[in-house]
Parts: sequence; C-alpha cells; structure tokens
Amino acid sequence: MIIDCHGHYTTAPKELQDYRDAQIAALKDPSKPPYNGKIEISDDQIRESLEGAQLKLQRERGTDVTIFSPRASAMAHHIGNATTSADWSRQCNDLIHRVCSLYPKNFVGVCQLPQSPGVAPQNVIGELERCVNEFGFIGCNLNPDPSGGHWTAPALTEKYWYPVYEKMVELDVPAMVHVSSSCNPVFHATGAHYINADTTAFMQFIQGDLFKDFPTLRFIIPHGGGAVPFHWGRYRGLAQDMKRPTLEEHLLKNVFFDTCVYHLPGIELLLKVVPVDNILFGSEMVGAVRGIDPRTGQYYDDTKKYLDALPLSEGDRYKLFEGNARRVYPRIAKKLSK
Amino acid sequence: MIIDCHGHYTTAPKELQDYRDAQIAALKDPSKPPYNGKIEISDDQIRESLEGAQLKLQRERGTDVTIFSPRASAMAHHIGNATTSADWSRQCNDLIHRVCSLYPKNFVGVCQLPQSPGVAPQNVIGELERCVNEFGFIGCNLNPDPSGGHWTAPALTEKYWYPVYEKMVELDVPAMVHVSSSCNPVFHATGAHYINADTTAFMQFIQGDLFKDFPTLRFIIPHGGGAVPFHWGRYRGLAQDMKRPTLEEHLLKNVFFDTCVYHLPGIELLLKVVPVDNILFGSEMVGAVRGIDPRTGQYYDDTKKYLDALPLSEGDRYKLFEGNARRVYPRIAKKLSK
Repeated sequence: MIIDCHGHYTTAPKELQDYRDAQIAALKDPSKPPYNGKIEISDDQIRESLEGAQLKLQRERGTDVTIFSPRASAMAHHIGNATTSADWSRQCNDLIHRVCSLYPKNFVGVCQLPQSPGVAPQNVIGELERCVNEFGFIGCNLNPDPSGGHWTAPALTEKYWYPVYEKMVELDVPAMVHVSSSCNPVFHATGAHYINADTTAFMQFIQGDLFKDFPTLRFIIPHGGGAVPFHWGRYRGLAQDMKRPTLEEHLLKNVFFDTCVYHLPGIELLLKVVPVDNILFGSEMVGAVRGIDPRTGQYYDDTKKYLDALPLSEGDRYKLFEGNARRVYPRIAKKLSK
Repeated sequence: MIIDCHGHYTTAPKELQDYRDAQIAALKDPSKPPYNGKIEISDDQIRESLEGAQLKLQRERGTDVTIFSPRASAMAHHIGNATTSADWSRQCNDLIHRVCSLYPKNFVGVCQLPQSPGVAPQNVIGELERCVNEFGFIGCNLNPDPSGGHWTAPALTEKYWYPVYEKMVELDVPAMVHVSSSCNPVFHATGAHYINADTTAFMQFIQGDLFKDFPTLRFIIPHGGGAVPFHWGRYRGLAQDMKRPTLEEHLLKNVFFDTCVYHLPGIELLLKVVPVDNILFGSEMVGAVRGIDPRTGQYYDDTKKYLDALPLSEGDRYKLFEGNARRVYPRIAKKLSK
C-alpha cells in the first residue's frame, strides 16, 4: 500500500471560494453580523473535482491513499478574527469529510485548525475534537505563523501551544507544521514562506525541550523539511555547539519529514542524511508546482518516481510508503481496514 | 590561489563590543546626544585576534585570502536609528580596513552598510563609497531585513532599493545578501533567519525583473543559497508555472551561491544542481558552527575538505576557488596584485 501523507483539496468546486469571498466581503462592514451563507456543492461536483485531478494522479502514479486536508494556502488565518477562522475551518473540514466519505479508500482526512493571530491556541481544540471524533480525521495542520508572514506568535516550543499538544497527545494525532499564504509581500507563499516555516520550526525544536514534556507528540515537517536536510551538518553542528543532545536523541523520535522535494538529487540527499524512519512519502499534489519538468518529461511533483529510482531495500520502501505513516498517524489503521 | 568569499571578523577584540554596549546604553536616554566614544584597539590586539583564529585556519586549511567583513550578527540594523547605524557601521568598517592593511595578502574588505528599518536605502551610499574608494573594499553586505526578523522592508526587487544598486553598478561591486541577528524570538539567527533570508531573496529574484534593469548587478546568496539547491526542482517548476524564463536566463548571470554548507552530501548536491560558474568557495569561518564533526574528525565549517573530496576537473576547481570570485568581485584583482 502506498500512502501519500501530504495532499490538499486545491481543486475544490468554486462554490467554496465564492463562500470565502462573501465571508471576507462581509468583514468590511463590522456593524453587520458575520456572513452566514451556505455552501451548495453536490456530491457529483465533488466527484468531478477529484476524478480529473487527485484520483487520476493516484491511478497514474500508482499511489493508493492520500492523507487529505483543506487547501493550505487558503487557510489564511490572518483574515478576519476568531469567528471568521472558526467558520471557515468548519466549512473546509466538512468538505474534506465529504470527500473522505465519498472515497473512503482514497482519502483520509486531516483538519485545518481555526487559528487566529493573537488568539490563544486552546481555541482550536473544539474543532480538532470534532474532526477526529466525529469525522475520523487522523491529524491536523498546525500553522506556526497565523499572522501570515509577520511571525507574531511564540515559537512552537513555548507553553503557549501546550493546550493543543495535550489534546493531540490525548487523541493520538500528529500535526503537520504548515503555514498558509503570506500577507507579507516579501514572502512568496510556496517558494519562500512555506520553506522558511519548515526550517524555522526545526530550529525551534533544536532550541527547545518540547519532547521532554511531550514524549509522544509528533510533527511532520513538510516540503522535505525546508532547508534542513541540505544543511544537516549545520544543524548537527549547531546542536553540538549549543550543548544539545544529538538530533537523533533530541527530536528524531518526534519529528518527521515528507518527500515533497521536486527533483531526484534533492530526494537522494534527503534519503542519505535523514534516517529512513523519519521520512514519509508525500507529493503535495495537486499543489505548489503543477508543471512537467522538460528535463525528465515527468511531473515535478511526482515524487514517487524519484523514490522509485533509488536502490531502496524492501524494508525501507515499506517504511517510506506505508509503515512510517502508520506509525506517525496511528488512527489511519482503522480507516484503512474499512 | 584559494579565495574564501565569506568570512566575518567574529573574533574582534572585546573593545569593539564594549563600544557597542556603550552606544546601545546611551540610546536609553534620548535626551542625551548619541554616544561619541573612541575604540582603543592596538595593532597588536588585532594581530592577536586573528593569529590564533582566521590566520591559523587559513594556514591549516590551505586557503590564501578571505573576503572579510564585519560580524554579520552584530550589524543589528534594528537597534537605534540611522545615526546609531551610521556610527556603528563606520567603526566596524574602519576596523576591517585596519585588518586588511595589516594583512593585505590575507584579507580583502567588504563593508557593512548603515541600514536602518524604515530609512531609505540611499542613506547607505556615502559609507559604501567611502569603503570602496578610500579603503579599497570590493563589495558590501546588504541586509534584506533591517528590522531583524520582522521583515518590514520591501522585496529586494522593488525600486526602493534601486539607488543602492545604481551605486553598486557604478562602483562595480557585488553585494552578499546577508541578514543580521533576529530580534524576533521565533527565528534563531544562524539556524533559521540566515537561511530563510537566503531562500526568500532567491524567490524574490524569480518573481521580479531586477536584472532587466540592472544587467550587471551581482548578488552572492550565502549559506549555499539557503534551501534553494535542495529545492532546485521546486524553483525551476515555480518559475515555469509563473511563465518566467528559466533560472539560467532569468538570474544566473547575476546570482551566485557560496559553499557554506557543512557536510559532504550537501556540497555534493550543490555542485550537482547549480552550475559551477555560480558557486564561490566560502566557509563563513570563524562563524556559525565552530565544532568538530565527530563523524569525520574535521571542523564542520572546513568546507574546502568537502570540495577536495569531489572529483572536480582542474577547470572547475579554478572557477570555484578563484575564477568566479575574480569575476563576481572584479576589484579583487587590484588587491591581489599588491
């Protein structure tokens, strides 16, 4: 079985964006109550939005199931306030639940959290519980920068975040560390902000002692871990200079990387420096890069092709494509046995 | 000849930091005039600060000359105001000039610029001219985020920065894109902020059309280009999706990477994906990582060792260690012939 740990519903019917546009438009007049429209999307529309995209790519690329969450760039936690974010998250998560119900063999849900800049993270717990307990979602996406490129929230290792971590541990679900779009014009979303957030989170985990307090807490750092594997020597050396334990001891029981790295030399490096137990197959499709690489004739984001080109043992292949995902997202077992 | 394009005076005598501390202390009482002390450092102190550090490492590692600038993390453009930054930059650059005068065969100067958040970049031109014309410096360090982790300045491709670029072109000096310390606690300086800035700058160059306006403008992105080489496929694919020219056409005549990547697999990747014409040997010594890698028994930042381990042609070795530096920093020729 091949589990893709990183897919977003980037192809949702346009009614979803229409709803969001109306919600945002309503924010302009604070004297009015929050937007309270309905999203009318039929099952057929959902099927259509997936058949020519994610499902087609699953078939073509030979993957089985995608751990699926709302479009990351559209979370935009910086827009509006906690009410805005709560409503938008519910709508997006409801839609993911419908996707997973229509295609229970192809998609397993992960939720967007209703974060908001300056709002205490415990505010997200209700929605996390709803998605896990009512929908059977198996994880969440946690945004380390709800401000969208202004980086006003405390580091992920601060006690500020602990209520969320307590709930994650209780529910036994991991979080993918995933920012959203940037409202700071210096940061391109998928080309800078995403990658910077990955790098930043890893360094925070080196500096902090989070996993002493939460030995079973698990994070997936997407996009191959940002800059981290390329600078693995730098991070090993910084940890050493700072008298931290080795990366293996300090955080590699808790921190995992996906394989959203869009060329063979990058994937080779990832597998060379990061222990295979810490890498989960992921493609981010349909996502950041949609084109075909003229050098290979293949989609940039067909990361399975790069992995297939490596001389991996059967045991390592199993870990990458299935075993690690089962370990990091234990609730997936129940979904896959259906 | 082996030219290390990236070295900072991280071992300056403590009188420099004492001066800075007094300067910062004076800021607390705005009713008083700016601090106007003197830095008393003897030539012998300067010699001592270098003999056991940079000069020793040059000898041990077999490098000849270091392109040398003030300590990057101490630039701290976010502290005080334009007057603070102007004075601090002058002091730091003066000291680099003394280093280069004492050891003209070992060090060639690059200046810190007196940037300040919210202050127009043309403000730095006087100091740039002074350092190039009076001291014979061959380049500058340009901070894309003088706010120190709040990212309040426009992207490097914006017209905001053009006055500096016009002067750089006129003087025929490149800039290393180099942030300083972060006053935003989420960003570790050398483990997150530096690397993020490198990644961010490269993506800005993809989005913009800067090099149409300045065909001879040159930037060095340090730390191996941040996350960029690891995600080379992502950047090629993003450029393609955005209908930009290829990276080669769009920016590789103007943008260069150093080799401050502290493990062999990282250096291998860098050389595999980035054209050799775009890579300059650099070590950042004495800098971000000071320890010895227990796996190799060698200093993490002895990047020459990683390059020496690669099967490079003589032509490529020449480019990496000397030729590219001569091309990117043309004013170095005059200094080296002395």
